[in-house]
Amino acid sequence: MTLPTEFEDWAHGIQSRMEDALAQHLPSAEIVPLRLHEAMRYAVLGGGKRVRPLLAFAAGEVARANADRVAVAACAVELIHAYSLVHDDMPCMDDDVLRRGKPTVHVEFDEATALLVGDSLQSLAFQLLAQYPLADDAHKQLEMVTLLAVAAGSRGMAGGQAIDLASVGQALTLPELELMHIHKTGALIRASVMLGALCGRLSEKDVARLDRFARFIGLAFQVVDDVLDEEASTATLGKTAGKDAEQNKPTYVSLLGLEKARTLALELREDAVSAIKHFGDKARRLHEIADFIVLRKF
Amino acid sequence: MTLPTEFEDWAHGIQSRMEDALAQHLPSAEIVPLRLHEAMRYAVLGGGKRVRPLLAFAAGEVARANADRVAVAACAVELIHAYSLVHDDMPCMDDDVLRRGKPTVHVEFDEATALLVGDSLQSLAFQLLAQYPLADDAHKQLEMVTLLAVAAGSRGMAGGQAIDLASVGQALTLPELELMHIHKTGALIRASVMLGALCGRLSEKDVARLDRFARFIGLAFQVVDDVLDEEASTATLGKTAGKDAEQNKPTYVSLLGLEKARTLALELREDAVSAIKHFGDKARRLHEIADFIVLRKF
Repeated sequence: MTLPTEFEDWAHGIQSRMEDALAQHLPSAEIVPLRLHEAMRYAVLGGGKRVRPLLAFAAGEVARANADRVAVAACAVELIHAYSLVHDDMPCMDDDVLRRGKPTVHVEFDEATALLVGDSLQSLAFQLLAQYPLADDAHKQLEMVTLLAVAAGSRGMAGGQAIDLASVGQALTLPELELMHIHKTGALIRASVMLGALCGRLSEKDVARLDRFARFIGLAFQVVDDVLDEEASTATLGKTAGKDAEQNKPTYVSLLGLEKARTLALELREDAVSAIKHFGDKARRLHEIADFIVLRKF
Repeated sequence: MTLPTEFEDWAHGIQSRMEDALAQHLPSAEIVPLRLHEAMRYAVLGGGKRVRPLLAFAAGEVARANADRVAVAACAVELIHAYSLVHDDMPCMDDDVLRRGKPTVHVEFDEATALLVGDSLQSLAFQLLAQYPLADDAHKQLEMVTLLAVAAGSRGMAGGQAIDLASVGQALTLPELELMHIHKTGALIRASVMLGALCGRLSEKDVARLDRFARFIGLAFQVVDDVLDEEASTATLGKTAGKDAEQNKPTYVSLLGLEKARTLALELREDAVSAIKHFGDKARRLHEIADFIVLRKF
């Protein structure tokens, strides 16, 4: 199975649009405090697959959302994602020195700056989501802020990180591993899809369909990550590979083995795709992203 | 000058109401992830002067705001304040082991948990501010979210922390020191007053008056902090005292001397009080808080 070049063009278009939008919304490195702003830009700009923005735009297409609105919502999600990477890389967490082939923020700058970069990126995410008109109804936009806050917080992404910490060296069951990932990566992936959709108009039933898609694809994303972590060398992944195994962290591969993990990823992709079958061609991009996530080599 | 007992009763009432509201809004320690939620509650509950909530309630009285709304807005501000203390105490920042007479979060739990506690408290603050109806007009409530996000972020509190870090061992001028504090503590104190007021109804001119009050009182608060830090022993302050001097951090006392710093605090109080003279008795609590901040012994 290969992805059409036309999808790649679309994805590159979004990635380039996101780079511009993020560069515009991040404070200039010429504004005080200079070093903090320089480090915030270092943490966010210049790379990343921008999977969450791709999902937001693709969900926005289903809901016929205004693309300028989706770009702002996607920036908010991407800032939350970027902050989580900066904090996760710190010595008291995963202690990683490389990210996307570059020194991590606390290595390139210092730990205190990395801490403040993450804190400031989170604030900026909520600022964007509240500051620009993203929905026809301001009440709906407040719901979007709530949705991102819940997805980022202790019942979402940060909570997943805490479960992950507690699981090092533990023998988790498959349901426990799934619970961790539903929080750690699934919550923000779901938020990406939902926020993109909420920039437009959809019936409750259709929102529920997208929600279902997002939950399956969030899990698929993590299973594939575990498979890639097992397979990849440091050189091709751009981050220190095999770290999970080294730290004795439970993964889908350690629980299921490589082959069964690969099969699970494909099954989750099928489930995701069938959840959005109803939308027909409007959901073409979501369908392609599902393929992209499962087939990606990085 | 002494404060009337009646003010103290009012303040204790707010403090007790805030303790209940925060306890209710924080996730239960019986919900997964247990340890994170336990640590979040440890960081926020059981103490603190709750100066920012007092300011929010007092400003709310000027604007005839509904007290239930003000309580939610005050919780949001207090959660941002609490998160900043948890992160500031970490080894890569101020490396403090005591806070309000208790071990700091990274000492009582661990560094990774402290990091996630701060991150999660910030998310929760924005969740509360978006989730509950706080203004008659949802657009106005979105402005409240924006206001808190700007106050917390790199152009506000977190930025002030970055300026502070950069200033260790530097010879700052008085305007440079002021710039740091306007960001570091001033921004959130201003947000407390503004959010309390925005829960009610005020003319733009009256909001500007409160804004002026808030800026003066924010600086006064910091000057008094510096004076207390100089004077206090570890026992009475409940945190490691004299730390600024030890780290060679510039303070109002190091720049002006103890006497002139005390005089400056009193002058700022006068400026603050005259900014709200227009409101007459409606601003009585704000007036009393200004006295409380300048006269406090802890």
